This record gives sequence, structure tokens and C-alpha cells, in this order.
Amino acid sequence: MTTRREQAQHLDQQDPLAHHRDAFILPADTIYLDGNSLGPLTHAARAAVCQTMDDEWGQQLIGAWNTADWITLPQRVGALIAPLIGAGEADVICADSTSINLFKVLAAALDLRPGRARLVSERGNFPTDLYIAERAVARAGHGQAVHWVDSVEAIDGLIDDDLAVLMLTHVDYRSGAMHDMQAMTAKAHAAGALVVWDLAHSAGAVPVDLAAAEADFAVGCGYKYLNGGPGAPAFLYVSPQLQAQARQPLAGWFGHVAPFAFATGYEPAAGIKSFLVGTPPVLGMRALQASLSLWGDVDMTDIRRKSVALCQLFIQTVEAAGCDDLVLASPREAGRRASQVSFRHPDAYAVMQALIAQGVIGDMRSPDILRFGFTPLYTRYVDVFDAATRLIAIVRDRVFDDPVYHQRAAVT
Amino acid sequence: MTTRREQAQHLDQQDPLAHHRDAFILPADTIYLDGNSLGPLTHAARAAVCQTMDDEWGQQLIGAWNTADWITLPQRVGALIAPLIGAGEADVICADSTSINLFKVLAAALDLRPGRARLVSERGNFPTDLYIAERAVARAGHGQAVHWVDSVEAIDGLIDDDLAVLMLTHVDYRSGAMHDMQAMTAKAHAAGALVVWDLAHSAGAVPVDLAAAEADFAVGCGYKYLNGGPGAPAFLYVSPQLQAQARQPLAGWFGHVAPFAFATGYEPAAGIKSFLVGTPPVLGMRALQASLSLWGDVDMTDIRRKSVALCQLFIQTVEAAGCDDLVLASPREAGRRASQVSFRHPDAYAVMQALIAQGVIGDMRSPDILRFGFTPLYTRYVDVFDAATRLIAIVRDRVFDDPVYHQRAAVT
Repeated sequence: MTTRREQAQHLDQQDPLAHHRDAFILPADTIYLDGNSLGPLTHAARAAVCQTMDDEWGQQLIGAWNTADWITLPQRVGALIAPLIGAGEADVICADSTSINLFKVLAAALDLRPGRARLVSERGNFPTDLYIAERAVARAGHGQAVHWVDSVEAIDGLIDDDLAVLMLTHVDYRSGAMHDMQAMTAKAHAAGALVVWDLAHSAGAVPVDLAAAEADFAVGCGYKYLNGGPGAPAFLYVSPQLQAQARQPLAGWFGHVAPFAFATGYEPAAGIKSFLVGTPPVLGMRALQASLSLWGDVDMTDIRRKSVALCQLFIQTVEAAGCDDLVLASPREAGRRASQVSFRHPDAYAVMQALIAQGVIGDMRSPDILRFGFTPLYTRYVDVFDAATRLIAIVRDRVFDDPVYHQRAAVT
Repeated sequence: MTTRREQAQHLDQQDPLAHHRDAFILPADTIYLDGNSLGPLTHAARAAVCQTMDDEWGQQLIGAWNTADWITLPQRVGALIAPLIGAGEADVICADSTSINLFKVLAAALDLRPGRARLVSERGNFPTDLYIAERAVARAGHGQAVHWVDSVEAIDGLIDDDLAVLMLTHVDYRSGAMHDMQAMTAKAHAAGALVVWDLAHSAGAVPVDLAAAEADFAVGCGYKYLNGGPGAPAFLYVSPQLQAQARQPLAGWFGHVAPFAFATGYEPAAGIKSFLVGTPPVLGMRALQASLSLWGDVDMTDIRRKSVALCQLFIQTVEAAGCDDLVLASPREAGRRASQVSFRHPDAYAVMQALIAQGVIGDMRSPDILRFGFTPLYTRYVDVFDAATRLIAIVRDRVFDDPVYHQRAAVT
């Protein structure tokens, strides 16, 4: 009779994605379930950054803007992200941070619906989205207001002629709950509104099809499931139907039609390029570009199939132990869940610290969420089984009561 | 009798800054006079980026936000820039791009003077400053307007009760001409206006004393004289007197008083930190931080003395040849010139291409500016002599007439 751990190992032997794990540099004796917060280093990113320093910056100096084609990196990296989010290659650009990109697309969207009174979104968004939206609406100067809702259901009642922009985060950062992008976009469009999607926890995690959903704008993050490194440049999508009209306020020289003509008047570049601002961060972009190259032969349906299986294995293993203090905080239905599983626990912070001490890295979100990201490119079934087993033991044996696990760090 | 080249070599032997050249990785047989556009790779930056990848991102993963203190990088890198610009360590922060930082400080400044009608600046600014200023004024929503002037003298007539913000670039990117920061700031202050300085071509190039000048806001670039690498993060200064009132519109989570409390309402951090937006670009920041460590024992008066001497040697050597087609485009008076010398030539593009082919890298700015940056940490007197000598020969012998030097690249 095989043990449950042996069954997990058997799944790894059958896994068509298993070989991708070799592309990642992972510390020994660590099960990393926090790739939804910071994806790990890849061999390709490491090599690309070293090459950029040694051969390009170091030897070609300023000439590398041409010889190494640094100048088109934002477009080229955007084109690598495009197939992961169902976008045309010319409709995605890599630039700045997610927060800044959100400001740009919100400003553009609000300007396209100046006569409508409201931006609607969920209070449960990642907070930077809330902060940025408040300021983007205030700065737009159209007298519009933000309306936060506390449930998805409440959105429906606000989809009317007053709706300018519906801003939604595709995947909730705490629970991993996922919106139906196509249905929500269609509803807002039927009322004449524009839709902005935040894909921070979607790109590389779940299949996304912006074109099929007819999304208007989207932003997302380079350092989570795309493995671009800490603070990697983010990305931004504008529907091809809107690119000729959409204008963003951070009108820097890289968004100019001819940056090196040094013209005194701003004339935006055609297409998505007008959403660039300043000089691209080459080291970070090279790392992201190299990590994105791993996706070339990956089928997102394989990713999704394994992601669902990893999440199910984790939920089942944890719940089989019958710890009343661990309550599933993610949707139980796989179709409504992205590539993440969260459990509530009253001592979530200390439980996570105890788990990290045992080599399983997830994270916690206040007040009581234990959060685990499942990244099919490098996470094994046996890792998931071992992580669940250690979590259960920590909770059952109250290992987390040790005061050492209650000391708070700056970033939690 | 010593030759003039031997005299230059003798100056190098006497140079108290000569040993700093060993900190840089410079290609063989190249005289690099474009550090004002992209500073070269340093050994320290290379090592720091590799360490960040191998020991931090690669091994500590998400934990490095605490263990490697990534979280305070914007403040720590800002504190290293501060002494180079005469600022308190807590008054400078490293973030985003120069264009984005300019948008932030202009928005903050305009909001502090909402009843005044005008932002005044020079049409000769680096173009991204013009573009950003136009949009920042339009978005501020106070009904203000931008007023561009074509000469420094024209500014005086516009310093009155209608002046909200005087935005000046300390050093002109084409000519290297330098404003008197203290005098200009004092004039604008006397009329009740705020002053924003762009230090892109100043930081690390010339002594700057923002505190003594009582400047209100400043921005600057990490990839020129600070050697932070292509697209390095930029910096931003807010006078300590204004930090409690000044508010910027890109209200991202890193500017929040407690980003990891995930509060739904935005409450700005105290001090300069409220000018942060999104997650800091760690790889780029590490490179900049390491290159900045070179300045620890450098006296800016030594930098200035050598900078002036290098510029003078270049001007004298070029002008001694009596080429009528080469006309000095920089101020002749050293006190009005930063660390750059420009000459006009009708065929500037081709002349520069011919010079690059001979191993001397400067750059050109349309329509006719040959631009040479002099960076005292790694540029030798003999380099300057050799560069001038090759330039003269190219112009005198019309080497630049060869069609190969007239082919245009994407970035010029």
C-alpha cells in the first residue's frame, strides 16, 4: 500500500511540467509557496543580468541603447507578457511600477468618460489600488467620485449610466478568489462604461484572455508569477480599439513619437508606446525578459490543470486533519479560485513564522490570513503534501505558541 | 622639452583623484566622455548586483525584504545622494524615473500655490521636463498656465505675484551652462513662489548646495554622474520645511505611513517617504547604492577643481588648432559651466560617429552640438588631450565626409 506522500511523488513523476523546475534557483531544504509575492531567481535571469552588466553596460556603454537594443525593451518585454494575458503583442508594454501604471490607465479611462460620475471598485482591492484610484479621480478634474463596494454583488446595482470606470482586481490578494472577467466586462460595457483590470495575481498564474473579454485597460506585476525579481518593472495593456484616443498624464519623453528629436512640444507616440514615461530600468527589465523566456513552450492549460491539482491537494491534506482553527478562506470551487490557497487562523502571524522556521515559506495578511501561492513551474506535489503536513503539525501541537514566533519584522 | 601630451600625463601623475579610476570597468582603447549620458559600470555595482541575486533574491527570497533590508533602500540610497547635493540625509529619496519624480514634485508645488497663475521655465529644458510640466499644470486643476521663456534674462520679468512655481534645470543639457542656484531661488522666494530644480546634469558633476540655496524641491538622475546603470532609479528632494505640507498625487502603498498594515485609507508617511509610490526596483537600486559608495572619501572641491581643469584643457587644445567649423557652445567662463563642454559643428552627427570609430565616445544633440562630459573620477588629462587631438584631426582632414559616418542609429 502506498502512502499519501508516495502518491504525491507519483504525481510528480507523471507531471509534464516537472522539468521546468530546473530553470529556477531554489535554496536547499526550502518549500517556497510565496511565488505569488516574489517569484524566485531563474538561471536565465541571473545570466541575462550578468551579461547586461559585462557585455552591454560594461563594454558597449552608451552605445548599448542601439547595439543591445535597450531602447525597445519595454515593447519587447511587453510582447513576451502578451500571450500570457491573451493580448496582442503590440498591446502590452513593460514599464514603471503597477501603482504608477494604474494611475496612467485610470487617468486615461476617466478622461474618456468625463460626463459620468463614478469609478466603482471593491474595498477589498490591494490597498495601493484604492489609494491610486482616489487620487486619479481627484486629479482627473471631472468632478467624479469613487464608490467602494464590499461585495461583488453590490457592483451590479452600480452598473448604470453614471458608471465611468469599473476597476477590478482579477484575483483577490487575500483569498485568491477570481472574478469572471468576461461577464463583468460585458456588464460594464453594456452600460457604456470602461473596465480596468489589475492582473497582479493573474499573469502567469491562471489563463487570462483580455482580448476575448474585450477588456479596455489592464495592469500587472512583474515580480510575482513572472519571476522578474524584486521590484521588477510592471506592465500595462490598452485595448487596440482605445489606443488612438487614450492619453495618460505622465507624458515623459519615452512616450513621445520621437524622443531623440528633442522636440519642445509633446506629441504622443502611436499605440501603446505613449504609455511610457522615462528611461526604462534596464537591469530589471533584462531579468524579467529572461524569466519570461521560460514560458515559450508552456501551455497555460497545463499550468491551470496542475495549479488546480496542487491547490486541491493542499486543501484536502489540511482539511483531512480536522483542525478547527484552520478555516479555508479561499473559494472551495476550483473555477472561482486562482493559483493560491488561504486559510484563516487566529494566530496567523505566529503560525507562519513557525512554518518558515520549518522551511515552508508562505506569508500572512492581516489580520488572520495564511497565504500559500502555488506556482506550477517549480512547485512539486510532494512539496505541497509536506507543507500541508507541517502546517497541520504546527497548529495541532501549538508549536506557534513559542514567543519566538511572535516577534514582528518590518515586512510581514 | 616636454610635449603637450607629456604635460597632460604629468597632470595625471599629480592628480589626487587618479586612484578612483580603478573603481570603474572601462573598455580597452576607449576614451569615454559620455558619462553625462550613461556613467560606466563600477566594480562595486557589479559585485552588489551579483550578491543581490545570489545571496538575497536567490537564497533569502521574500525574506530579503527584511534580512537584506530592501524595504529601506529608497531612504538609504537617498541618504548617500544627499551629501552630493547639499541636502540632509532624510530629505532625499531614491525612486522611479526623473520624469515621474518631476511630476510628483510639480504637482505638490502647484498645490501649495493654487492662487497663483503661472509656472515659469525655460524652453531649453530637457524636453521631458517640458512635457511633464505641461501635464502637471493641466492636471493640477488650479487654472494655472505654463510660461516658457527663451532666455534666462526673460525670467526676471516674470517673477511676480502671479508666479506659482519656477522650474529650472541647473545645468543645460546641451551647453553645460549652469544657473546660479542661490540667486535664482532667492529671487523667486522674494516674490513668494516655489522653486523646483532639475539636477540631472549636476549631481556628482558640480558642487550643489540645496540647503544653502533654500531650494524647495529637486529631482535628478541616477544613471549619469552617479553611475547607477542604464535606467537607474532617480532621486527626489523636498525641503524639510515643506515636507509636512507637500502632497504628491501618485499615492502608492510605499508612501503610506504603514504599507504592511494594508489599510483601506491612504495616510501619507511622515517626511520624504510620502513621495514613494510602488515597490522599489531592487536590482537597479543596489547598483546605484554600490556606485554611490565610491563617493565616501571624495571631496567635491577636488572634483570641481579637476572638472574645471579637464574642461579648460579640452577647450584650449581644440581651439589652439584654429578650426573655424568648431565653435564653442559652452560658456567660456568656468564659473558658469558645469562638467561638460560642447562645440557646434555643421556636421555634428558625422563628426561624432567618426570620433567614436576612433575610440572617443561623446554624443551629439540636434542639430549641431558635439557634447563631451568630463567625469573627474575616471577621466585622465591625457584622455582629454587625446580626444581633443583626434577631434581636431577629424574636422581638419574632413574624415567625417565618409558616408559610413552619416548612417543614423535609433538613439543618437
